[in-house]
Amino acid sequence: MAGKPGIIGGFFQGAQGMGKQRYLTGITTTGTPHLGNYVGAIRPAIEAVNAGGADYFFFLADYHALIKCTDPAQVRRSSREIAATWLALGLDTEQAVFYRQSDVPEIPELTWILGCSAAKGLMNRAHAYKAAVQANEEAGEDPDYGVTMGLFNYPVLMAADILMFNATHVPVGRDQLQHLEMARDIGQRFNHNFAELFTLPDAVVDDSVAVLQGLDGRKMSKSYGNTIPLFEGEKKLRKAVNKIKTNLLEPGEPKDPERSTVFQIWSAFAPPAEVERMRREFAAGIAWGEAKKQLFELINEELSPARERYEALLADPGYIEAVLKAGAERARAVAVPLMERVREAVGIAPVDA
Amino acid sequence: MAGKPGIIGGFFQGAQGMGKQRYLTGITTTGTPHLGNYVGAIRPAIEAVNAGGADYFFFLADYHALIKCTDPAQVRRSSREIAATWLALGLDTEQAVFYRQSDVPEIPELTWILGCSAAKGLMNRAHAYKAAVQANEEAGEDPDYGVTMGLFNYPVLMAADILMFNATHVPVGRDQLQHLEMARDIGQRFNHNFAELFTLPDAVVDDSVAVLQGLDGRKMSKSYGNTIPLFEGEKKLRKAVNKIKTNLLEPGEPKDPERSTVFQIWSAFAPPAEVERMRREFAAGIAWGEAKKQLFELINEELSPARERYEALLADPGYIEAVLKAGAERARAVAVPLMERVREAVGIAPVDA
Repeated sequence: MAGKPGIIGGFFQGAQGMGKQRYLTGITTTGTPHLGNYVGAIRPAIEAVNAGGADYFFFLADYHALIKCTDPAQVRRSSREIAATWLALGLDTEQAVFYRQSDVPEIPELTWILGCSAAKGLMNRAHAYKAAVQANEEAGEDPDYGVTMGLFNYPVLMAADILMFNATHVPVGRDQLQHLEMARDIGQRFNHNFAELFTLPDAVVDDSVAVLQGLDGRKMSKSYGNTIPLFEGEKKLRKAVNKIKTNLLEPGEPKDPERSTVFQIWSAFAPPAEVERMRREFAAGIAWGEAKKQLFELINEELSPARERYEALLADPGYIEAVLKAGAERARAVAVPLMERVREAVGIAPVDA
Repeated sequence: MAGKPGIIGGFFQGAQGMGKQRYLTGITTTGTPHLGNYVGAIRPAIEAVNAGGADYFFFLADYHALIKCTDPAQVRRSSREIAATWLALGLDTEQAVFYRQSDVPEIPELTWILGCSAAKGLMNRAHAYKAAVQANEEAGEDPDYGVTMGLFNYPVLMAADILMFNATHVPVGRDQLQHLEMARDIGQRFNHNFAELFTLPDAVVDDSVAVLQGLDGRKMSKSYGNTIPLFEGEKKLRKAVNKIKTNLLEPGEPKDPERSTVFQIWSAFAPPAEVERMRREFAAGIAWGEAKKQLFELINEELSPARERYEALLADPGYIEAVLKAGAERARAVAVPLMERVREAVGIAPVDA
């Protein structure tokens, strides 16, 4: 789920009580949410919404998905699954504005208009683009081999996503910090050239974010193929947990919790007292099989009710669609009047205005 | 009026009787139409519409205008003046679809989607971009100095303008031929990657097009500052005609019509018999003052009724706006259903579809 205006959890703390803060987060619709997304992004986001005190905008970034995915079935499936996941996990869509990017036609329009203020030189330096160029050069290809205008324009679309809603805070991973800077730069140029219409957003980077380890101990990520599924059923969940990499220590031999993925994931789900109990179990030489069994049960218990809602939601896509459409209406209640001012500022207006 | 999907007159001949041809032409809203635009583009376009036999789409390209014009008042004024000009000159908006680009939100959306199929390498080779780079390099600047993403993306927007309406024929000047090729290339990639939705347009280049000479004998062009105004009033028209560059030959001395701008412009307005009469007058040594007086009267007679309508239209912008809005509705009657298929093809769809 890379290539999005920042989806990293943990950042939500501190949003409360500061007035008119508006957090905005996009979720690229190319994959199926996994356990790492849940712990690192979705769960903290939902908790933050429930805590209140700020505005929250979450959107399915399907225009972004098109940059890297030419499989329409995958984009569609992912949109459905991501929406169902957030709803099943209890996102309060009365509080948060939850919408699909492509339901807001003002976004591609703003993308065009902002592009006319955005320096191409800025895009030349974008990490995602530069990484593609470097890979091509190393492979002896033309620097722009396989690079689409979608990829090259991606920071402009991201700027439109953010500026369209006057977001004040955008949670980003360190790898997205530069793109947020670009959004600020593009907004600033527009404000300077035309009219002070855009709020310049602050990046929110929280390095204390819970990064869940995957099966192989690296960060859990679709691109590493090391994920544990979120809602694919008990059987698959158990199977995945059993595949978590451990070492050869026998039952009875003390185990180091700090170097164990099983313990790391346990800590992301268990309350403090249970974390401590498991630490003692590790010291006492709990068998890996037993630790995994307990881990599966813990996760499964937390996820089971949501998994049932998830299944029910997928069986009722009309409901999901209605929620997204209602969200789009609320999003457009912000976008349409701002867009009117943007158009006026650049000279796009009725001839009789 | 550069930077547009082809507005050059003369090409309209031959459209008749070939069935479902659809001609599409954009007019960038950064200037006020002058006599060269009238002779080279507007008059032949209106004649072609009146002759019938094909579909004609004409649009005010205001998103294109933003690429090179950051003065909102100029974009607005130009939109108004261009629309009033075409209407005053008798464009039949029942036959032709006459709309403003920014009234069709499907266009920027398609621009984004096509960008995801368009190779960046293609844009690197676009003439307009390369010209900017070359000028920068000659000035010792960074190659992309002052280049916006708007300029760099311009061929993608132009592709969307054309493909959105399944245009079959796009009149272009030789300088725009490459951009038309790019539109074909982008459409072809989409058709190949997703679904055969887009008609690949043919460029229509007609080198026999009437290119009117300007005051200094070069092609009449706003960028040369050598234009004769179209609708700025009799007085200004007479003044401009009097400024047409001639030579020092005295009254009574024979003059070469083929090397005279006065004669060239005369030929663009006079019926054949009158062209021949003037040729004889040149041979007989007509005074420059007298030739210019007759030229002014000829042009003024052709333009006077339209000029009155132009003034009346500018005084009634609500009418212009209503015409453009009606045109946009007809344009969207084509764009909306095609866009629905485009979205479906790439995977942007309601989750319950």
